[in-house]
Amino acid sequence: MSEGIALTAYAIVAMESHDIRFPTSRELDGSDAMNPDPDYSAAYVVLRTDDGHEGHGFAFTIGRGNDVQTAAIDALRPYVLGRDAEDLGSLYKELVYDSQLRWLGPEKGVMHMAISAVVNALWDLKARREGKPLWLLLAEMSPERIVELIDFRYLSDALTPAQALEILRRNEDSKQERIAHLKEHGYPAYTTSPGWLGYDDEKLRRLCKEALEQGFTQIKLKVGADLADDVRRFRVAREVCGPAFPIAIDANQRWDVGSAIEWVGALKEFNPYWVEEPTSPDDVLGHATIARALAPIAVATGEHVQNRVIFKQLLQAGAISYLQLDAARVGGVNENLAILLLAARYNIPVCPHAGGVGLCELVQHLSMFDYVAVSASMEGRVIEYVDHLHEHFVDPVVIENGSYRAPLKPGFSAEMHRESIERYTHQ
Amino acid sequence: MSEGIALTAYAIVAMESHDIRFPTSRELDGSDAMNPDPDYSAAYVVLRTDDGHEGHGFAFTIGRGNDVQTAAIDALRPYVLGRDAEDLGSLYKELVYDSQLRWLGPEKGVMHMAISAVVNALWDLKARREGKPLWLLLAEMSPERIVELIDFRYLSDALTPAQALEILRRNEDSKQERIAHLKEHGYPAYTTSPGWLGYDDEKLRRLCKEALEQGFTQIKLKVGADLADDVRRFRVAREVCGPAFPIAIDANQRWDVGSAIEWVGALKEFNPYWVEEPTSPDDVLGHATIARALAPIAVATGEHVQNRVIFKQLLQAGAISYLQLDAARVGGVNENLAILLLAARYNIPVCPHAGGVGLCELVQHLSMFDYVAVSASMEGRVIEYVDHLHEHFVDPVVIENGSYRAPLKPGFSAEMHRESIERYTHQ
Repeated sequence: MSEGIALTAYAIVAMESHDIRFPTSRELDGSDAMNPDPDYSAAYVVLRTDDGHEGHGFAFTIGRGNDVQTAAIDALRPYVLGRDAEDLGSLYKELVYDSQLRWLGPEKGVMHMAISAVVNALWDLKARREGKPLWLLLAEMSPERIVELIDFRYLSDALTPAQALEILRRNEDSKQERIAHLKEHGYPAYTTSPGWLGYDDEKLRRLCKEALEQGFTQIKLKVGADLADDVRRFRVAREVCGPAFPIAIDANQRWDVGSAIEWVGALKEFNPYWVEEPTSPDDVLGHATIARALAPIAVATGEHVQNRVIFKQLLQAGAISYLQLDAARVGGVNENLAILLLAARYNIPVCPHAGGVGLCELVQHLSMFDYVAVSASMEGRVIEYVDHLHEHFVDPVVIENGSYRAPLKPGFSAEMHRESIERYTHQ
Repeated sequence: MSEGIALTAYAIVAMESHDIRFPTSRELDGSDAMNPDPDYSAAYVVLRTDDGHEGHGFAFTIGRGNDVQTAAIDALRPYVLGRDAEDLGSLYKELVYDSQLRWLGPEKGVMHMAISAVVNALWDLKARREGKPLWLLLAEMSPERIVELIDFRYLSDALTPAQALEILRRNEDSKQERIAHLKEHGYPAYTTSPGWLGYDDEKLRRLCKEALEQGFTQIKLKVGADLADDVRRFRVAREVCGPAFPIAIDANQRWDVGSAIEWVGALKEFNPYWVEEPTSPDDVLGHATIARALAPIAVATGEHVQNRVIFKQLLQAGAISYLQLDAARVGGVNENLAILLLAARYNIPVCPHAGGVGLCELVQHLSMFDYVAVSASMEGRVIEYVDHLHEHFVDPVVIENGSYRAPLKPGFSAEMHRESIERYTHQ
């Protein structure tokens, strides 16, 4: 197991950052009720060690402000340079708890996303160095090592280290079976590609059909801009997919509590599988009210949830039936370990947010680790898939029969092609 | 009333920013359980109009990262230049809802604090142009105009425009009496100056004595680093101040839910007036649990509360007995209007966070507006006062008999001396 290998300390000697922006708004890819014209972007970081290894990471943004995000990554350079790249637990905690930087959050927004980029780059580096895909590296770690990597501050009323250990030990003996299953069958995906608001009905119909043909077992439609339009689009999707096929809807925070309940109520006849981001990602109590009013329609959220403390409360309040973690918004892999364990403690399936730039590449590792070592289940679990921008990645995701194929190359699949970085660097 | 004056549109033609840092860590001023060595800083903005007026605003930080905060302010420049400086409602909403920038929050952290700085500068500008201190400018606005300035999104389950109007109209007829009262007596303050963790007992004793002599009706002690130390310091403060004098304690987010309840329980004999920031500012449910367990000891929070959505929930959950708004963390004056009205709706007194750089200068205006037009009461209400860095401001706060004297100069009291800006600009 990885922690058994006595690696010599090796130092991070260089850290470069890039402000990369793709002009996606031209095609209305990614358009939804709150984000009409995103230019998918990455504040990208590369770490280099004195023994010649690299680690890549990024924060995902949708255009303007990517320069601020890049500046926030740059502000972490003094903390990272010269550090032992094996030091994944304490360096993460130092970045989160630097008292002066912490004032800019704490643990939220631009600074926390910068920490995410750097922490994920450290994990990419470690996985490459150990010659394993990240999911497998994590899956093979001992429960004790995983627990060491987690910051339990503010969690102890919901999850203690002892409870986390108990969850991790529960299915430890059968890990190898699930690793083998993943290598053979991959992990099921759902697709958001048909559902963007900017597409006309014909394109929606065609993309729904393609999703079925490609073997996806769920799709998602963006809603919330215009109710009549949503009714029409949902009807088209139901015509193509049939009455029982899981079709989730996503409002991207468009509504207040009352209007969420009304609007989704008006779509009830189409049997939405879940309603995603019905209101502000900060509104734990609002999500709980919506969930109670709309039951049995499920509520899902997470892509804009700032940290483990909000996730903890969403779970405590019974506000969500699906937890949609994001790989690059909270504090990177370490914080997502805590979030996976919180979800397991409350028996809530994790269905990660993906799409954007490289988020599919990252989250597949987290869901696969979850399956092997935490939840030990795929029931009710799918990873979002969006067919955007994968061509810019060195180890892009591969979808087969509606599932993510388990990545086998060493690392976190985070590396972009050098030509893409150079071509799309913002001027 | 201000909205009755037909001002010609005037454009913002220049926006400058400054990264200003004071080396306060040298004296341990401002040291607490989470922030041992802050260098109080401001990401500072100056707006200029084509008719020769200026508006000043800033985000307060505690040192490192102030460059990121300044970069975030710079990112708002294209939204502000060329705009009508009278356009206080819609420009605020545009900054908050720019879809691409919003991804970096939404409404939290570095980007939201940048919006705060710019929005507050716009208000400083408007108040100067109208020749009034901000509190009076706001107090003389009609209820309808105030409601127009507020973003009610995500609030309607707790506060509607109609409910806000009703609150503002309730005591409209007696506004002039309260304006006169403020001009004569000012607004009561409490002082945190004795309570920093870095001070020895003798300094604590001396500063407590001075606080009493200066007429303050409440003090606050920092706690949470070491329980034995807190017991000793609280005993010293009680010896000086007597058994009934209000002494609040402030843990600056140090604890988990369980440890907050235990630690404050161990200080019960000293009768804490409130316990401030017992845990993560994001933990609404945690604050509610702590408040129930510690009652009748009051819970207070707010200086790190990111936006009105979290404040809404703290009020809905009965999690706080005092709401401590911050002038420069949420989206500036406009969002604080919403927060004052939310507090009034739940009958929770607002006792603003101050100190830092220029926060006393700003919040006095908000509390005075609250007194004249919203709560119409000073009962249970005090403004924090810390005796730091006021000498750098052109119109510094004046404390008389333990009260803030009502500022009468036009503006938001936000302007720093040009020499201070130049001398403390970070190199």
